Amino acid sequence: MMNAIFKGVALLCVVFAFAQAQQSRPNLIISADEARSIKQAVGKYPYFDRAYEEAKRNIEDALSRPIDVPLPKDAGGYTHEKHKQNYREMQLAGFLFSVTNDARYATFVRDMLMRYAELYPTLPNHPMGSSEAVGKIFWQTLNESVWLVHVAQAYDCVYDWLTPSDREKIESKLLRPMAHFFTVEHVREHDRIHNHGTWTVAATGMLGFALRDNDLIDKALYGTKKNKQGGFIRQLDLLFSPDGYYTEGPYYTRYAIMPFFLFAQAIQNNRPALKIFEYRNQILKKAFYAALQQTYTNGCFIPINDALKEMSFLANEIVIALNIAYAQYGGDNSLLSIAKKQKTVMLSGAGLKVAEGLAAHPIVADFNWHSIELTDGPQGDKGGVGILRSGNSADQSLVLMKYSAHGESHGHFDKLTILYSDQGREILQDYGAVRFINVEPKNGGRYLPETSSWARQTIAHNTVTVDGISHYQGKIDIAEKQHADRHFFSVTDSFQIMSARVAGTYLGVEMQRTVALVNDNSFKKPVIIDVFRVVSDKVRQLDLPFYYLGHLITTNVKYTANDKQRTTLGKSNGYQHLWLEGEGKASGPVKVTWLNGSRYYSVVSSADSSTSVLFTRIGAGDPNFNLRNEPAFMLREKAASHVFASVIETHGSFDGVTELALGSSGRIDAVSVLASNAEASVIEISGKDVRWILMIANGPSSGTAKHTMSINGAEYSWTGNYSLKRF
Amino acid sequence: MMNAIFKGVALLCVVFAFAQAQQSRPNLIISADEARSIKQAVGKYPYFDRAYEEAKRNIEDALSRPIDVPLPKDAGGYTHEKHKQNYREMQLAGFLFSVTNDARYATFVRDMLMRYAELYPTLPNHPMGSSEAVGKIFWQTLNESVWLVHVAQAYDCVYDWLTPSDREKIESKLLRPMAHFFTVEHVREHDRIHNHGTWTVAATGMLGFALRDNDLIDKALYGTKKNKQGGFIRQLDLLFSPDGYYTEGPYYTRYAIMPFFLFAQAIQNNRPALKIFEYRNQILKKAFYAALQQTYTNGCFIPINDALKEMSFLANEIVIALNIAYAQYGGDNSLLSIAKKQKTVMLSGAGLKVAEGLAAHPIVADFNWHSIELTDGPQGDKGGVGILRSGNSADQSLVLMKYSAHGESHGHFDKLTILYSDQGREILQDYGAVRFINVEPKNGGRYLPETSSWARQTIAHNTVTVDGISHYQGKIDIAEKQHADRHFFSVTDSFQIMSARVAGTYLGVEMQRTVALVNDNSFKKPVIIDVFRVVSDKVRQLDLPFYYLGHLITTNVKYTANDKQRTTLGKSNGYQHLWLEGEGKASGPVKVTWLNGSRYYSVVSSADSSTSVLFTRIGAGDPNFNLRNEPAFMLREKAASHVFASVIETHGSFDGVTELALGSSGRIDAVSVLASNAEASVIEISGKDVRWILMIANGPSSGTAKHTMSINGAEYSWTGNYSLKRF
Repeated sequence: MMNAIFKGVALLCVVFAFAQAQQSRPNLIISADEARSIKQAVGKYPYFDRAYEEAKRNIEDALSRPIDVPLPKDAGGYTHEKHKQNYREMQLAGFLFSVTNDARYATFVRDMLMRYAELYPTLPNHPMGSSEAVGKIFWQTLNESVWLVHVAQAYDCVYDWLTPSDREKIESKLLRPMAHFFTVEHVREHDRIHNHGTWTVAATGMLGFALRDNDLIDKALYGTKKNKQGGFIRQLDLLFSPDGYYTEGPYYTRYAIMPFFLFAQAIQNNRPALKIFEYRNQILKKAFYAALQQTYTNGCFIPINDALKEMSFLANEIVIALNIAYAQYGGDNSLLSIAKKQKTVMLSGAGLKVAEGLAAHPIVADFNWHSIELTDGPQGDKGGVGILRSGNSADQSLVLMKYSAHGESHGHFDKLTILYSDQGREILQDYGAVRFINVEPKNGGRYLPETSSWARQTIAHNTVTVDGISHYQGKIDIAEKQHADRHFFSVTDSFQIMSARVAGTYLGVEMQRTVALVNDNSFKKPVIIDVFRVVSDKVRQLDLPFYYLGHLITTNVKYTANDKQRTTLGKSNGYQHLWLEGEGKASGPVKVTWLNGSRYYSVVSSADSSTSVLFTRIGAGDPNFNLRNEPAFMLREKAASHVFASVIETHGSFDGVTELALGSSGRIDAVSVLASNAEASVIEISGKDVRWILMIANGPSSGTAKHTMSINGAEYSWTGNYSLKRF
Repeated sequence: MMNAIFKGVALLCVVFAFAQAQQSRPNLIISADEARSIKQAVGKYPYFDRAYEEAKRNIEDALSRPIDVPLPKDAGGYTHEKHKQNYREMQLAGFLFSVTNDARYATFVRDMLMRYAELYPTLPNHPMGSSEAVGKIFWQTLNESVWLVHVAQAYDCVYDWLTPSDREKIESKLLRPMAHFFTVEHVREHDRIHNHGTWTVAATGMLGFALRDNDLIDKALYGTKKNKQGGFIRQLDLLFSPDGYYTEGPYYTRYAIMPFFLFAQAIQNNRPALKIFEYRNQILKKAFYAALQQTYTNGCFIPINDALKEMSFLANEIVIALNIAYAQYGGDNSLLSIAKKQKTVMLSGAGLKVAEGLAAHPIVADFNWHSIELTDGPQGDKGGVGILRSGNSADQSLVLMKYSAHGESHGHFDKLTILYSDQGREILQDYGAVRFINVEPKNGGRYLPETSSWARQTIAHNTVTVDGISHYQGKIDIAEKQHADRHFFSVTDSFQIMSARVAGTYLGVEMQRTVALVNDNSFKKPVIIDVFRVVSDKVRQLDLPFYYLGHLITTNVKYTANDKQRTTLGKSNGYQHLWLEGEGKASGPVKVTWLNGSRYYSVVSSADSSTSVLFTRIGAGDPNFNLRNEPAFMLREKAASHVFASVIETHGSFDGVTELALGSSGRIDAVSVLASNAEASVIEISGKDVRWILMIANGPSSGTAKHTMSINGAEYSWTGNYSLKRF
């Protein structure tokens, strides 16, 4: 009997709690409880206060101006920007109303929603729309989704304050028609497994929560057919690898991650039983940390694929993801150093937690960047990226090798490319995309044609182009079906090494690249060893460029300089964008030294008299001055099979103020390939007081297989995938 | 009787004080009193403590190693660097002995001096010496002077501690022979009015004070003949203009200023009656402040003439000059902000004063950079440089026009050139020198041939080249005899303007350039107006380039791009170093817009269908990759007389993180020359909600002359050298 009573009371409590959760507003990104906590907290936490005061200033300013809800006309001009401003202001005003209960804010949201409720039913498709995903308020549905993500929050905040007739008008004229627009008229966008799809389901799902419409919520979560073939859950399954790698690469991760975290926050508040932040072994946590691990210590996202190099973890999308991740995943204080650099927090309970953390920890340790391999593909079986790091965040060396899948429409044809960063800057660069984002005179701020003709081509990258043709013939439909494969990835204190291979870039050609980062007491900075093996069915032209940034200091190559007249290196596949500045033949290992900032860098590569060395500069075939005019040197071999073995040595120091310049010659003079066959490659590295032998297994990956190579009477034996011997 | 007694006592005091001044050691850069004060101060002032602890670490380290005084062999290798290290260590050890009385320090100085006393008499001329100024310890006497400046201080510090026989040996084998070397064997260097001469007289003069040798002191002060035709005083008279401008320009000022201040400090301590810091209306103070006014707010010296752009007020030479200037000239707290950035102070009484100042003023105002004209020439009648600034040090616009004398062997042929800096960086650049200082593989770190073939040529600068030939035919012997002339220089809050002219750059050609910096409420940043008038005896080719830094965004010029094949713009006078990237004809005012950092910049220039516009890039004729590959565009006219009237507008904003790009089009669309004759030029500037008329008098400078120009029936009247009307 007592038991039954207890059970009854307990049940009542659950029902009550559930009803509470259903009834208290707001409850999308901030809960009613959080709104109360924020009210108490104002004035206590500087980072939160700054964001809060800025929001107040913005909205007070908005209140002083007449509301404008213009007829949509342009794709980047006044009406476009005004509608963006409107959704931001509604979201902020809704938030401020929840915290302050000041009716002026609610009135503002209502009045603006009423204007939209009048306008929206009259709107045809947007006049600037071009693709199938044409919006009404904006030229593309993507922006319309973002609009709704913000407006759903605003509506939720003022819902209780609105009169039933206001609600009726807003819902029937604006919100319900928009739900129909997305889930019926644009069902393809809505159910698509793509970052645009994530914005769409976040929009309809958050509207569903605001309207308490379970049907709409279920469509957002499981696809319009509710069969789990589309929708948010399916996106969580397919858009990230098990390590959290987002297939488009870091620049787009930054963009895609925001709707994931916002919608997850709304789901957590409204359907806590889903445990969305725990879903798929905490895939959202993995996605977020993977994104941060794909930044360099200067905060910039590593610019593989179409990427703009200035983009960093200071972006608003990362502020939001960081704040929610901090709040949901146990308050990892290592995130606070990044929050500090972001200088702001989200206006929500999560943001308040970060601000509290910052106040409690005036001195915070740096974020823990470390070496990491991130597999690609939903099952983690489509290659990946390997990142080797050495040194703390104040002075870190980073080498990345890309052996992932193509990465959709913004992917580059650059299998096995590498990048090297040091001193907080790029040393061996990836060009990124050719785009001046939102810069009107540069093609309206969109991608420029040279993104396709140059930046995506293989020759624009630090990898091998065969016979002057890009990987997969530069065709996305072929590239999308293939990927590179990891061979091995191993990290210890003094030696880190990764290896990957790819077979389908050219018919009859297989490639394997192995990159090691060696910490050795006799060198001040880590030494990079780079072994690129190409096995081909016939003699081909193999080009391996190094896009160094800095000023060329010296080379041991005797070259002829084309310094009176100059032509392009080729006519297609990106070669038309390279000036040939000089050309020479090697007479032994090639050495090229350049200066960047306060250090020298030397590449020393195995070579002989059959090796051509080309000095090139980006910028040819560029009538509109869209390209940066940056240099490279390129090793060219004509061979059926070949191993390019190189060392990248960081050495010396330069100081323009004290005028001290030391160590302009590196210590390593020679790299040679002692042997390379289907079983293994053996590379010798030598110089002043250095002799190293690197042995790499080329067969199946195995940590226990024993290898022996006999070379000119000497035996080289080791166990496992690799071995570095230092003499 | 009482009077006589008083007089006697007073006289006694004077004699005593004089004897004290003569007898207490040390007394060159620090006095015995200061050494005692420093002993008391250790541990109290963080900036001083840091420098002091570093010196102790250095010397403890030196004490732990065997002394090495190698046979001089090289000009930049081990023996060169070792002798430099030795003098620094002796100077520091001497200082530490004076403060601590720890005999280990004195022993170190003695032992090393003894080694030099043994070596020096055996030395022939240095094996690497090339010029007439060959040293013995170093390849050039310049380094030998610097050695002695340091060693004189060290000897002075340990003098009292040494035994008479030690002194006898050191003086007779080393110091006296060195005095003879400078004042007899190298009398030309010693008596030369040149920065090398300043180092020499500082060396012999400071040795004179250390040895109490009035003859040697007088030779340093007044020349070896003591006739005031050479020596330090004469250098103070001739090497600076009355405004303190040093004729070689800012980069070399930084280098030259150190021996001036060090020797002056020693003179002040030993011959206070000379009042050396008051000499010539405090010329040393003027020289020091003029040097700082020739830095941009990022600390870098404005790179006119042969200059390396990294050089800044952080240089040790400026630390020394600043510390002594601060102590001698009343403790100007505006210097503390610079001392703070230097992060160190001199180890002397002056350095202690700065450290005390920094401790007393934890928050200091920024240094007061302001608009300034600095005349050149000992009488201030050889032109000068004009610097216009707007905005505080956090975000300052700076325009410099150079209308000085040639500036000796490091001068450039660039009369009336301009530079523009904004956002803490160069926007319209001066190339500086072509040199990788002390970078061994780049010609031993010396000036590269392209300094002469490119950087010094007129076409390398933002000024007019006539008929493809550099000013003064690029001949230094002609250029050294001539100079440009100031016309007027006027600074008010909202309008700053400077004008200068030159007649001798080409026979039959006169040039006048007027540059205004306009602050106008309707523009966020100041607008620059640039009016370059050329009057010639016949039709000539007039080239005016703008060496913009940043990325070209758009131009209204229809041009043909040479983007498949490219040749040089010319064959000589620097033209051989320019690639011609594109070429077009104007059809009205020319507009070119580029992006640099977070802002756009547009040049709008008067032009018509007779105007050619050339797009060029530096880097041709450069087989050794010595040049930076940076762009320019160039206006070309074929005319007997012509006025290039331009506006440089700074506009909009770009942020790669928020991806906001605003205001990529400037407001100014047109600049036209309404009239220009011997009396005046009238320029019209127009654009969106802008119409300005700038009137410039071209005749003799007069603030009261009345001018009227009738142009197409309209009358333009004004009084004085200029007038800007804003409609």
